[in-house]
Amino acid sequence: MLMNSCRLFERMKRDGLDAIIATTPENVTYSSGFWAMTQWIRRGPQNYVLTPAPERGKACLIASSDLLDLAADRIAELDTWVPAIRAYGFFAIERDGEAMLDPTSQRLEAMLQGPHDSDPIAALIHAIQHSELRGATVGIDEDGIAPRFMDRLADALPRTKFTPAADVFRFVRAVKTPVEVLRLRRAASISEEAINAALAIAVEGVTEIELACAFHTQTVRAGATPVLGCIGVGARSAFPNVQPSAQRLQPADVIRFDVGGRYQHYRADIARIATLGRPVPKVARYYHALRKGLDRAYELVRPGVRASDIFAEVVAVVRREGLPHYRRHHVGHGIGLDGYEPPILTERNADVLEAGMVLCIETPYYELGLAGLQIEDMVVVTKDGVETLMASDTDLRVI
Amino acid sequence: MLMNSCRLFERMKRDGLDAIIATTPENVTYSSGFWAMTQWIRRGPQNYVLTPAPERGKACLIASSDLLDLAADRIAELDTWVPAIRAYGFFAIERDGEAMLDPTSQRLEAMLQGPHDSDPIAALIHAIQHSELRGATVGIDEDGIAPRFMDRLADALPRTKFTPAADVFRFVRAVKTPVEVLRLRRAASISEEAINAALAIAVEGVTEIELACAFHTQTVRAGATPVLGCIGVGARSAFPNVQPSAQRLQPADVIRFDVGGRYQHYRADIARIATLGRPVPKVARYYHALRKGLDRAYELVRPGVRASDIFAEVVAVVRREGLPHYRRHHVGHGIGLDGYEPPILTERNADVLEAGMVLCIETPYYELGLAGLQIEDMVVVTKDGVETLMASDTDLRVI
Repeated sequence: MLMNSCRLFERMKRDGLDAIIATTPENVTYSSGFWAMTQWIRRGPQNYVLTPAPERGKACLIASSDLLDLAADRIAELDTWVPAIRAYGFFAIERDGEAMLDPTSQRLEAMLQGPHDSDPIAALIHAIQHSELRGATVGIDEDGIAPRFMDRLADALPRTKFTPAADVFRFVRAVKTPVEVLRLRRAASISEEAINAALAIAVEGVTEIELACAFHTQTVRAGATPVLGCIGVGARSAFPNVQPSAQRLQPADVIRFDVGGRYQHYRADIARIATLGRPVPKVARYYHALRKGLDRAYELVRPGVRASDIFAEVVAVVRREGLPHYRRHHVGHGIGLDGYEPPILTERNADVLEAGMVLCIETPYYELGLAGLQIEDMVVVTKDGVETLMASDTDLRVI
Repeated sequence: MLMNSCRLFERMKRDGLDAIIATTPENVTYSSGFWAMTQWIRRGPQNYVLTPAPERGKACLIASSDLLDLAADRIAELDTWVPAIRAYGFFAIERDGEAMLDPTSQRLEAMLQGPHDSDPIAALIHAIQHSELRGATVGIDEDGIAPRFMDRLADALPRTKFTPAADVFRFVRAVKTPVEVLRLRRAASISEEAINAALAIAVEGVTEIELACAFHTQTVRAGATPVLGCIGVGARSAFPNVQPSAQRLQPADVIRFDVGGRYQHYRADIARIATLGRPVPKVARYYHALRKGLDRAYELVRPGVRASDIFAEVVAVVRREGLPHYRRHHVGHGIGLDGYEPPILTERNADVLEAGMVLCIETPYYELGLAGLQIEDMVVVTKDGVETLMASDTDLRVI
């Protein structure tokens, strides 16, 4: 199961929620294991998961009938505690009367004959009406439901109290389950391998586009999907979101990778720095300071520490170690189904780290006319400290 | 310019809108040329474009300050009639005092010193207050603005009337500008080349995953981003959203590709069918019927024709030509920044085709236990007919 159900049910109890409804693709996958493809690659398609509190009934997945094959084919990925699927909409799939059906096709055929509504909100309304939830307080992830549907829901179920719950999912998702950590670990490894593939072709004259192509190709080969590919050389590396151009790598240039794909729906976001030949002294000095800051983050991250304390200490170390004018709005963030999740390690965030959080810790620095320097590692908070998800060290790579 | 500004301003006039606000990544890019990376790869980050009617002032881009490098570096892609940028949020970028800055760095430095607000909605409120739009009727794309921000906007500007306008963007985007057609044409070509790359390795025993890897690798090499990769062999090809598995290609198997990447923000969505050796007779018969349906769509598509008339005629042809039980909910849809845009060619859609629309026309058929068969072409509606964006014919490819 992807979902941290203990944490969810505790939080629902605290907030007085009898049930919670996932509406964004991330929260639908999180709540059920179901990957609603059209919802992930577009904005608009609606799929939901209704998750009642333990004593209030069973969970129900509301899915467009054109996506049921994804449930049938990936049954092992569906959480077994989501026994009910309500489909909506018409989608024609025929059956060869003479053929023996394989198990996936049999499941799909059965699903196509299950309960069926005209549209997603009718299906959600029926799912609530057929549950023990009439008159209940129901949290709804307000970020994924179409505004016009929110109104219809409230009109159809006047005795049910709906309350925004996107923050509940954000809170719950911050502490990862073991299967989530496994996926994040693999996502991080794939991005490291892809950086290595790009560096393997990094000779004088190579373009940013060629580096990016090598990076993304390796990502695809490893079974992940390209998402983030900020790869810049020389002065262009100072652009925070640098998109690959025809710029060619020159001696002493910095190459900055701020990159990460998606593996089994989970994101990577890591950064590494290389130079073609020896770095100029300023780059070497700054890099040393940024790396000391990251080292300090590794020392500090553990359950019970405040996000703001890590921020203050890491920034202080970077300043002391050679970058006295260092300014930054955060030195890390959670990662999971989304590339940027709580907790964010900012100056004012009083959130306290917990075991199971997966963080990107980072000390980026952008100087126009010089370079962008950035080390970003993915780590998991353990019972008594931190474990890296990275295979590579944080040395500046002189190639 | 990506945006069809004539069509937008006409529609705004008809709807009594003094201005319109883009909020989704697609509509922000469409309105300004600006690619707000974080908004495209995540849900939550807010960037907007305020576009007044021609006599009501100038357009303004509201962008997170951590994305300004994308505006500075891709200045040629920014629409020149979006002269104003309001940034929000703090993002530290330093400057090497001794270095000469290149033009991009100079622009970025200037942008960082422009008007600046604490958060996106404060920036949007200021943009409206600094315009001629107080007391005006303003359409707002309700699909991309965070619900809590919608409330703040209404509270801060009580004399401005806000009205949902996602449908206005959908309507306007249906008729493409020449630069959009160019991008869609290239997106289609890239996906065709990627299918060819996959078929080049299609021998007995190859897995769906290997075919997909070849497909996506070629997509990346051509400068596009993988998005849609439904690639299935044998009976699995009947699963509409089939995701590549370890299933191996066998003699007489169908290979179905329903695929498409993203090129310069624009989507492809095409389908092709191959068989390993000669197809079984039923597949050949069905394919013939589906292809005749597609041929009929090519004959029918032209300005002035109703979507529903194309649907009725195409389904009738498929039934007559060898698939008498053919059922379908649509036989095509628009495509652009999104993979699925108006018009949708359904049984009841009275929308009338217009020159400049880019459509995916398709006749998919899924039969459990047999195969999925699908031919999907991207076409542009011309003044007096239709032009294909495809290089390949629609033959069933026997390999």
